[in-house]
Amino acid sequence: MIKLLCLGPKGSFSDMAAKQWVKKKECEAEVQYRDAIDDVFDEFHSSEKNGILKIGIVPIENSVEGSVTNTIDRLIELEGNIIGEVVLNIRQNLLAIKKIDLLDIKTIYSHPQAFAQTRGWIQKSCPQATLIEVKSTSGAAKKIKEENISENIAIASLEAANIFGLKVLRKSINDFPNNQTRFIVLGHEQTPITERDKTSLVFSVKNKPGSLLKVLEIFDVYDVNILKLESRPTKKELGSYHFFVDIEGHQHQESIRDALALLKKKGGAKILGSYSV
Amino acid sequence: MIKLLCLGPKGSFSDMAAKQWVKKKECEAEVQYRDAIDDVFDEFHSSEKNGILKIGIVPIENSVEGSVTNTIDRLIELEGNIIGEVVLNIRQNLLAIKKIDLLDIKTIYSHPQAFAQTRGWIQKSCPQATLIEVKSTSGAAKKIKEENISENIAIASLEAANIFGLKVLRKSINDFPNNQTRFIVLGHEQTPITERDKTSLVFSVKNKPGSLLKVLEIFDVYDVNILKLESRPTKKELGSYHFFVDIEGHQHQESIRDALALLKKKGGAKILGSYSV
Repeated sequence: MIKLLCLGPKGSFSDMAAKQWVKKKECEAEVQYRDAIDDVFDEFHSSEKNGILKIGIVPIENSVEGSVTNTIDRLIELEGNIIGEVVLNIRQNLLAIKKIDLLDIKTIYSHPQAFAQTRGWIQKSCPQATLIEVKSTSGAAKKIKEENISENIAIASLEAANIFGLKVLRKSINDFPNNQTRFIVLGHEQTPITERDKTSLVFSVKNKPGSLLKVLEIFDVYDVNILKLESRPTKKELGSYHFFVDIEGHQHQESIRDALALLKKKGGAKILGSYSV
Repeated sequence: MIKLLCLGPKGSFSDMAAKQWVKKKECEAEVQYRDAIDDVFDEFHSSEKNGILKIGIVPIENSVEGSVTNTIDRLIELEGNIIGEVVLNIRQNLLAIKKIDLLDIKTIYSHPQAFAQTRGWIQKSCPQATLIEVKSTSGAAKKIKEENISENIAIASLEAANIFGLKVLRKSINDFPNNQTRFIVLGHEQTPITERDKTSLVFSVKNKPGSLLKVLEIFDVYDVNILKLESRPTKKELGSYHFFVDIEGHQHQESIRDALALLKKKGGAKILGSYSV
């Protein structure tokens, strides 16, 4: 049985993404919940050394808030491959121990991404509330259940409300209706070519004008389509970036293999994986 | 006298950037502190309608944590120009009412960016602490002074420690030594050409393969150097982005004027401003 690591506790959006993946793959899996995205990466990496292969699933991008920077930063040192992706519709909800007037709310617990996705709503509807960061939305739901203080509420999924037996004060409080999160699945093997694949890679360019364009032109020469381009600081100095690129197709297809070979010759790139979309 | 809006209260990193800007410009200015980056943008915009022109200064990018997404998202609807930039070395510090053992700390107040820049240190040195988001680092310093509870501490600048009369428990707790933030200055006029200028612009491309490359090639054809490229979600759907680009030179220089004219013809771009670096 597959062991699947994700950010917990039960009822987190990562949990829902993990279950969607298991259903699609029609496989049997045991979902193991971890406290932080870093813990998922750490255990995914050590599982290879331990000989008990585990799969990881982590959020990478939200349609409103953008990149999950913690995940992006860990991909630079990924030992393994991205083997798949899951896109989940995200609805943030206000959960409480019992019914309470919005203006009587003292404390809101949630994950920083959930605060970012609901900032406008919070400022308008309960500006008096203190916002406390916790490591996951379902962790916030668990916390208010344990505390049992009616003025302390959580922003989390409806699943979390069910699991922890909480009241739903308000449904869908996210500021933008089209709120989706893309999760990536991390594995130790490579996946075969399918009808429609995507390849993710990361590279740095010298801080020299035109360097980025030269890299992108390699893809153009080989008729490789760029789906996404994203920059992240290298953390070494201001103005120095890693570029994360998604391209159409599988790394074992001829044109992509040639483009990647040239790219490696010109300065190098780390292939994060090819996977079916 | 110039009125300069920034995120406050006094002692915030924005305050330090504002003062650095005033010193460089050798002008007289009154710094006005606001509660949130959105308030700075709102008042900067309304100041033109009111006839009392104000300047705004906001953080845009940190060398470790990357973009200040709140600022980037507001630039899309900017009415005015970026007229300058300030780069500030950032040192995050642990401030308290009085000396206290790290493991006795109950609550840490700070801005989400400061938490992100010190996450590794916090997890190692005071994993038991509850993290509470406030709107600025100096606001966190002010809050613990008012609360006067010795187990509640703040992450903020040394200036904030001075201003609010706080003890410095630990200096420079940021995870990466090379921690710098770039601030942009917002004005209602355009700035003249100087020896070394930068131009910032934002554009969207059709969700069509190769569209981004076509735009970047326009700059290449006119020998315009790209200094920075950054994507932000349009918030409409997953996979749809605005691109923020910094190029070398001033929009009133011939080659750049021609490149921008062609860019406008091909699909459009919003010029955010040209400014001396």
